[in-house]
Amino acid sequence: MKNLLIINASPRGNRSNSRCLTELFGQKWLENNPDYTIDYREVGQEAIPHVSEAWIAAAFKPAVLRTEEDRHALEVSNHLIAELKKADVIVLGSPMYNWSIPSALKAYLDQVIRVNETIEISAADPKNPYVGLLKNKRLYLLLSRGNGGYGDGEYYGHMNFQSAYLKTVFNIMGIDDINEIALNGEAFGGETFEVSMKSVCQQIDHMTKKEEIISV
Amino acid sequence: MKNLLIINASPRGNRSNSRCLTELFGQKWLENNPDYTIDYREVGQEAIPHVSEAWIAAAFKPAVLRTEEDRHALEVSNHLIAELKKADVIVLGSPMYNWSIPSALKAYLDQVIRVNETIEISAADPKNPYVGLLKNKRLYLLLSRGNGGYGDGEYYGHMNFQSAYLKTVFNIMGIDDINEIALNGEAFGGETFEVSMKSVCQQIDHMTKKEEIISV
Repeated sequence: MKNLLIINASPRGNRSNSRCLTELFGQKWLENNPDYTIDYREVGQEAIPHVSEAWIAAAFKPAVLRTEEDRHALEVSNHLIAELKKADVIVLGSPMYNWSIPSALKAYLDQVIRVNETIEISAADPKNPYVGLLKNKRLYLLLSRGNGGYGDGEYYGHMNFQSAYLKTVFNIMGIDDINEIALNGEAFGGETFEVSMKSVCQQIDHMTKKEEIISV
Repeated sequence: MKNLLIINASPRGNRSNSRCLTELFGQKWLENNPDYTIDYREVGQEAIPHVSEAWIAAAFKPAVLRTEEDRHALEVSNHLIAELKKADVIVLGSPMYNWSIPSALKAYLDQVIRVNETIEISAADPKNPYVGLLKNKRLYLLLSRGNGGYGDGEYYGHMNFQSAYLKTVFNIMGIDDINEIALNGEAFGGETFEVSMKSVCQQIDHMTKKEEIISV
């Protein structure tokens, strides 16, 4: 069996649009790809800890030199990274919060972006030091935003610290097959939101049928 | 007396370079501007909570309709916003974490970027809905980064989700007098780091002498 990991980053429960999208995606994916199991990673409603000084000391130490305290500091990180490594396909649902991602999702990323686990850093060339260690995975970003106009070249494109950032960090961890679907206008509603919702549902319908081209 | 607010976002204590910079800045500021008091806001070593569903419900409700539970959900936010409003000059020290800000600092920003407190949102024009409510304040960003090349047009400029983001959100809250000082190359050390440290100290020396031009 292959594995689909659904990560939900919204602090909201039933009222979350990004959760609706990941739910719909998961359902349709299973219909079209019954050889998958689904795992869920709750981020928005679970207090994933901020990286601490003890975490940093432990993460940058060779594994064989880690003390009991070091291993304890990395427990959450180890668990979250194991989930990511297990997944063949990752679906990340997130709202835009203050033109970026919610702090809970940043806490998750700070836990999983880890030297010798998801990235390697070579001191030899500071201009090209990063090698991603997550291989053969596909990522779907299902993003919700209160306003619209955040696409490349659109009037709020320069204020989109959500999708550009997420693509950058997952790409650095080694994932280059990244697909983005964005729901716009949640806060203002009206036609922008309705048109966007219709388009998003069509895109999910289309994207969940394309499993055959995955090379994993 | 005027007020200088120093915000420290690093999870590190004595080993934090950004804390060294805010400490130096505070010292020199007081030497040159003895009519200031200094307040400190600890962010990196204090678990500022992620915004929750209860927080969102409370923040977007008119103040007169808020229940006891709503008021409780906003307590931390109220306190942090009062500190910001009191400050004439704000100094924010932060490392770059995974090409952005640490999750603890994002949690802080999610708490203080709040409708009718630090921003107003007008539904009339979705293309220009934001009005900042923090007025007559100056902000100094004292930033530390493991690598270099993050300036505009430099080889990692497109991966700088730290200073561009911080400028964007403080600007939206109404602060347009924003000064950035960045210490580069912390992780790789060597000449880049030494040259950068020397430059940063000179800039701090210069900037702490310019108080007379503040209009607050």
